[in-house]
Amino acid sequence: MISDSDPSLERQAPTAMRAGPSQEEIRRHNLGALLRHVHLGGPTSRAELTTRMGLNRSTIMALTADLTAAGLVREELPRDTGRAGRPSLVVRPESAKVYVFAFDVGVDRVAAARVGLGGTILDRRDAVRHRGPFELDEVVGGLASFARQMHRKTRSDTVCVGAGAAFAGGVRNDGVIRFGPNMGAYDVPFGEELARKLGLGLTVAVGNDANLAAMAEQSRGLGVGSRDLIYLHGDVGIGGGVIAGGHLLGGHEGYGGEVGHMVVNPGGRACGCGSHGCLEAEVGERALLELAGRFGQQVGRDAVRAVVDAADRGDIVAQEALSRVGDWLGLGVANLVNVFNPEIVVFGGMLREVYLGAAAQVRSRIATEALAASRERLRLRTSALGDDATLVGAAELAFSHVLADPLEALARVSS
Amino acid sequence: MISDSDPSLERQAPTAMRAGPSQEEIRRHNLGALLRHVHLGGPTSRAELTTRMGLNRSTIMALTADLTAAGLVREELPRDTGRAGRPSLVVRPESAKVYVFAFDVGVDRVAAARVGLGGTILDRRDAVRHRGPFELDEVVGGLASFARQMHRKTRSDTVCVGAGAAFAGGVRNDGVIRFGPNMGAYDVPFGEELARKLGLGLTVAVGNDANLAAMAEQSRGLGVGSRDLIYLHGDVGIGGGVIAGGHLLGGHEGYGGEVGHMVVNPGGRACGCGSHGCLEAEVGERALLELAGRFGQQVGRDAVRAVVDAADRGDIVAQEALSRVGDWLGLGVANLVNVFNPEIVVFGGMLREVYLGAAAQVRSRIATEALAASRERLRLRTSALGDDATLVGAAELAFSHVLADPLEALARVSS
Repeated sequence: MISDSDPSLERQAPTAMRAGPSQEEIRRHNLGALLRHVHLGGPTSRAELTTRMGLNRSTIMALTADLTAAGLVREELPRDTGRAGRPSLVVRPESAKVYVFAFDVGVDRVAAARVGLGGTILDRRDAVRHRGPFELDEVVGGLASFARQMHRKTRSDTVCVGAGAAFAGGVRNDGVIRFGPNMGAYDVPFGEELARKLGLGLTVAVGNDANLAAMAEQSRGLGVGSRDLIYLHGDVGIGGGVIAGGHLLGGHEGYGGEVGHMVVNPGGRACGCGSHGCLEAEVGERALLELAGRFGQQVGRDAVRAVVDAADRGDIVAQEALSRVGDWLGLGVANLVNVFNPEIVVFGGMLREVYLGAAAQVRSRIATEALAASRERLRLRTSALGDDATLVGAAELAFSHVLADPLEALARVSS
Repeated sequence: MISDSDPSLERQAPTAMRAGPSQEEIRRHNLGALLRHVHLGGPTSRAELTTRMGLNRSTIMALTADLTAAGLVREELPRDTGRAGRPSLVVRPESAKVYVFAFDVGVDRVAAARVGLGGTILDRRDAVRHRGPFELDEVVGGLASFARQMHRKTRSDTVCVGAGAAFAGGVRNDGVIRFGPNMGAYDVPFGEELARKLGLGLTVAVGNDANLAAMAEQSRGLGVGSRDLIYLHGDVGIGGGVIAGGHLLGGHEGYGGEVGHMVVNPGGRACGCGSHGCLEAEVGERALLELAGRFGQQVGRDAVRAVVDAADRGDIVAQEALSRVGDWLGLGVANLVNVFNPEIVVFGGMLREVYLGAAAQVRSRIATEALAASRERLRLRTSALGDDATLVGAAELAFSHVLADPLEALARVSS
């Protein structure tokens, strides 16, 4: 690595600055920054915002007034500061009034939620998805119907500012689902179709589920403040979301982070992608259930939990299955540690259960296979956001344009 | 991946803008941008700079005048434009006058060069390094002596503006060599010691050799314009440099990109890192020579070339050795393609020979193991800069502060 962390090391075509940003550009940037503060950090006093943002009191007051007028925040007196003197007003996001729709499509379940500014899930609908070929009309129809139900329940003074969706598959930069082998979904214009069915005049931004979960953990979970985080999501498949140097790893066309298809056991179990011995094939739900002699009975998260519970109770077959799977998981993580030198690796979805049941194996394999320097400050954690990580990530994706330029985003919605 | 490539998706602590940059800040930024244009692009006419940088003629003229006064560029009439009318002056970097020292420490060789602004290697010294324990004093002493020899030959009107070094090992963010298992180098304050021995009042920025080679290919080689590139460097070990989304993958402490220690063959050949079946162990020089029945005879690049030549001439043992090694290399690259979705993978060092000798194996393994979406636009290439990639990268590292703020950097040197 480079000892000088000089940004000039990035050799993109050098761009010139024509002129400094105008007062108006600075104001818009700062409106976004302030809104993001309260969106991610919750209600915050003006005094605190002054300190944290390094702006003076009158600027904070003016920005807050603009955001209040736009209906994005409100100011109120704090309950009880316990201090003498005039208390600083608290700035709160208008969580009940400003919201987005967030969608999550996994192999076994679909979910839709109405998420308020500030990240509060105001309303939600979950449904089981039966394993089998991906039927676009059915999935999109179901999600749109959920959204309309929730939309009808809102008051007339609420405003929907965006929509985002997480999908368990490879999503191209333009939002098309390129591959979802565990659902048999290929080249599906999912976002476009969902937007059409919603009929609310909104576009739907689409992201890979593990990528969105990684962003959710970085913004609201255990990765807050971390610039180097890997989120591993286990469902039927294994997905990955990588934050490297503070940036989500996208790749040339959007398929970066497909760590589930890293081969850990050449010539091993067949994978849905057509290869053999992928991390997904050796560590996914099917491998665990087969090794535990339970494949073909129950499926899904409950089936995985049942194996972990049986192992806890001393079931030797379950223990050996978990140990085998933990071994491959450890090898996969060790590879990622060598490749990325992350600060945190987060286990989510069914990998949470697998990691909790086989942490010793995982850690021991990392200790053997990962470079000492790369692992000595590594933290392994289970997801702080749990099964909502993908949905929360989809909501954040939907809010992103509002936080980038609040007034412009509102103008677009109301026009 | 995310369908909106919105920069606001990066959830770092939101920062406020206090005010726009001053005229002076804009000027300094643009001086750096212009200098970088001619440093990377070579002599360029004022008219061309006006177009490329999107600045007006008088601004370009003023910036050029400042850089000329500082002795960083000079303006001259073009040889023959072939067009009528007054020709636009050409701006050239002062390659003969402004230079850096670049150093490269590999397992088998060390090199030092004096590299002029614009990237011209003005002078160089190369030496064979005998394999064996890393002796800091010896290596640093040799490099410093080379640099002093070259320094003595310079004219009095030249100025050295920096120094950079590439090292075949893991380099921590602060420039300390944390591990170089193929040289037995651990926790070595290499940059500090080299700076002391140089005695020129310069600090020496240190980077991992493959990372610097990746940056060199991106700035001056086949990666120009690419934001997603992986450089694989083969020496005795295998190193990697990853450019993801335009940023060099550094990792939490600087060890990102150590792809040579990704396990591709669990339980395979012993690796210098203590693990087994690492890409480096299966694909490095030793594996190839052992498989070809030539280990213990010749070593180094010539030995690798001899195997490839023998295979070309029909030597079956050599062909099988190359095919085996190519197979593991292909698997390793397939894993990286799935993880990173790069646009270009570059083979450098001895991997250039291995790839050229086993391209069919490599490609066939990628076709089997990498996701179709992730590989369909992939380009596999051999290094455009050849064995100089690491040295060129070290020079770019040394120039980086000059390109970031030319006047400040010069003021520091002359004070």
